Amino acid sequence: MYPELSQRWAKIRNEMKKDNTEACLLTSSANLFYSAGRVFKGYIYIGKEGDPLFFIQRPVGLKGDNIHYIKKQEDILPLLKTLVNELPANIAVEADYLSYNDYKRLEKAFDGIEFKNANTLLRMARAVKTDYEIQKLKESGLKHAALYSHIPAIYEEGMTDTDISIELERLSRQMGSLGIFRIFGASMEVFAGSVIAGDNADSPSPYDFAMGGSGINPSLPVGADGTLLKPGMTLMVDLGGNFNGYMTDMTRVFVVEELKNDLAKKAHECSRIIQEEIKKIAAPGVEAKKLYEKALEIAESCDLKRYFMGHTQQAGFIGHGVGIEINEMPVLAPRSRDILEKGMVFALEPKFVIPGVGAVGNENTFVVTDNGIEQITNLDEDILSIGL
Amino acid sequence: MYPELSQRWAKIRNEMKKDNTEACLLTSSANLFYSAGRVFKGYIYIGKEGDPLFFIQRPVGLKGDNIHYIKKQEDILPLLKTLVNELPANIAVEADYLSYNDYKRLEKAFDGIEFKNANTLLRMARAVKTDYEIQKLKESGLKHAALYSHIPAIYEEGMTDTDISIELERLSRQMGSLGIFRIFGASMEVFAGSVIAGDNADSPSPYDFAMGGSGINPSLPVGADGTLLKPGMTLMVDLGGNFNGYMTDMTRVFVVEELKNDLAKKAHECSRIIQEEIKKIAAPGVEAKKLYEKALEIAESCDLKRYFMGHTQQAGFIGHGVGIEINEMPVLAPRSRDILEKGMVFALEPKFVIPGVGAVGNENTFVVTDNGIEQITNLDEDILSIGL
Repeated sequence: MYPELSQRWAKIRNEMKKDNTEACLLTSSANLFYSAGRVFKGYIYIGKEGDPLFFIQRPVGLKGDNIHYIKKQEDILPLLKTLVNELPANIAVEADYLSYNDYKRLEKAFDGIEFKNANTLLRMARAVKTDYEIQKLKESGLKHAALYSHIPAIYEEGMTDTDISIELERLSRQMGSLGIFRIFGASMEVFAGSVIAGDNADSPSPYDFAMGGSGINPSLPVGADGTLLKPGMTLMVDLGGNFNGYMTDMTRVFVVEELKNDLAKKAHECSRIIQEEIKKIAAPGVEAKKLYEKALEIAESCDLKRYFMGHTQQAGFIGHGVGIEINEMPVLAPRSRDILEKGMVFALEPKFVIPGVGAVGNENTFVVTDNGIEQITNLDEDILSIGL
Repeated sequence: MYPELSQRWAKIRNEMKKDNTEACLLTSSANLFYSAGRVFKGYIYIGKEGDPLFFIQRPVGLKGDNIHYIKKQEDILPLLKTLVNELPANIAVEADYLSYNDYKRLEKAFDGIEFKNANTLLRMARAVKTDYEIQKLKESGLKHAALYSHIPAIYEEGMTDTDISIELERLSRQMGSLGIFRIFGASMEVFAGSVIAGDNADSPSPYDFAMGGSGINPSLPVGADGTLLKPGMTLMVDLGGNFNGYMTDMTRVFVVEELKNDLAKKAHECSRIIQEEIKKIAAPGVEAKKLYEKALEIAESCDLKRYFMGHTQQAGFIGHGVGIEINEMPVLAPRSRDILEKGMVFALEPKFVIPGVGAVGNENTFVVTDNGIEQITNLDEDILSIGL
């Protein structure tokens, strides 16, 4: 892992230089996995130069260079003084992740050193993936597509959306899924992802999702709600594939027996046109918001704007970066300032909710290449019939 | 839900009075589920008197009294001024949950009003469950025990710990499990819980667990690691039962074919003695740390201290409150200041790790009653053989 981690440290330091950040001190699972290659309880310290230092509380017994065991965060500064020639003038910590109380305690433990925000910096560094990370995402995309290819064989008459979800969760775990679903930011909770049938697609969610679903309990009001699948109803499968710590995002839509609703057919076709048109224009240097604008323009030209990205509640984006977390940069939204770069990986999900039928539209994950984008979630894009 | 929620608001206000807190403003999923009966994106405001106010961002269309839609947290104060006779002198917000940046933004939006910490207050209020909550935990305990009763029928020769976990995850979902596992505090990530075989029980975890397991990926280094089950090896099943938003905690141990190791047999017997002795002394008014001391005393008298609550890495507690989250009050640890009260619900998990064999010892969830404790996870306490 050393050459791979070295590359990532260089990317982080490149971002640090941009605003004169002299050191980073990271502790969230996502940023530890990125910068240290594994999760532990403790901190990684990345200074301007030299190998990073690891201040670890648990687990006991980790071996390697620059590992220093600590009991509490107050132990870091005294140790740091013995390990570096010069203390940094400022340290970036995860101000969008650490709780207020944890931040204040850490700030006190570094008395006198200015604190900056590491989250924006790390989101920037992580937005452009390394070759190794792209490989991991491609592996996840292969598994994700293979998982969905089972859906027609899983369905039996009398099943609910929840039943289908449970069988897919099991298969994904058998294929190596870690189960957990990592989301950046406060409070968003999702289990596995969403399998949504019929009008449950129009149940608004607590989050900025195109379609939420009302869930099976008010404790977790998202996703499958136990809807019995019936002829003509669509089933949207939008699970997060987390097979190796890197998450692809992918949606396919199925219909029980036969799709007879013309509006739903038209909307699915419109979603495919949006994907095709975006594939033509997406490339390094293109503004992410241009992709949003193009999608909206096509949805409008199809006279489907009122169903676009939700109906009762509409989402304010058409895509998002993916990686260790499901909501990385770039954000494909109207006010996004992100610009596509080679190595970025994003999910594109132009979807529609048709009342009385359900959700339609595909979602795929793409890697930004030298002069375009490459789709890494490849499976039939039609609305496939199940239960014929 | 109104009478139930009213009871909870009274409990929260009772804690507020103790330190002159005039209002609470809560937004975490766990505290919203507790105080509002469902999760949404937004805030519940609980003043000194009157019904709470709901400031909601999403989902659209929620109906009910005192619901006010907002676009952002800055909209709350102007609205509040029109809704209450007098602004509170202080407001408690979730300082152990809100990110530093979210807290600072909220503080700015309430310019001039002193902020206090709501998390400690809510942990106190939630520690003693209402009758309805105890009912939910008992329902969860019944399902949890029924789930584990399938284990001997699930096992087949050639299975790994992960295989067993996957089948139990599926069954639990079929029995209504929500899948997610709620933990209070930063960074602890667990999927479903732990199914740990043989020496994987001795792999230290990043968290304060008696046994961690190394997991299947460095992104999530806890739990099952794909160990092939072999004769004489123990299999510890410690999944969180989250069937209705309230989580019980329960562990049972199995052995492939026959347990021949005398030390492991002795340690399991010691775990059972600890549970029996603690049942005799636990009651309202008893200090939680006394239960820890009693457990340690018995482990020492059995000459098993070096294996107690882990071997390579030992955990610093023998039990913990459960409810909406898996780590509520009371904490059964040496420095705990918690005192048992009627209506508290806690898990007791005196476990041992025996090198070369695996983990032994049971875990059960108990409700504190008028004059003792009642076990709500009831299933055979022996080490059952699988694969005979």
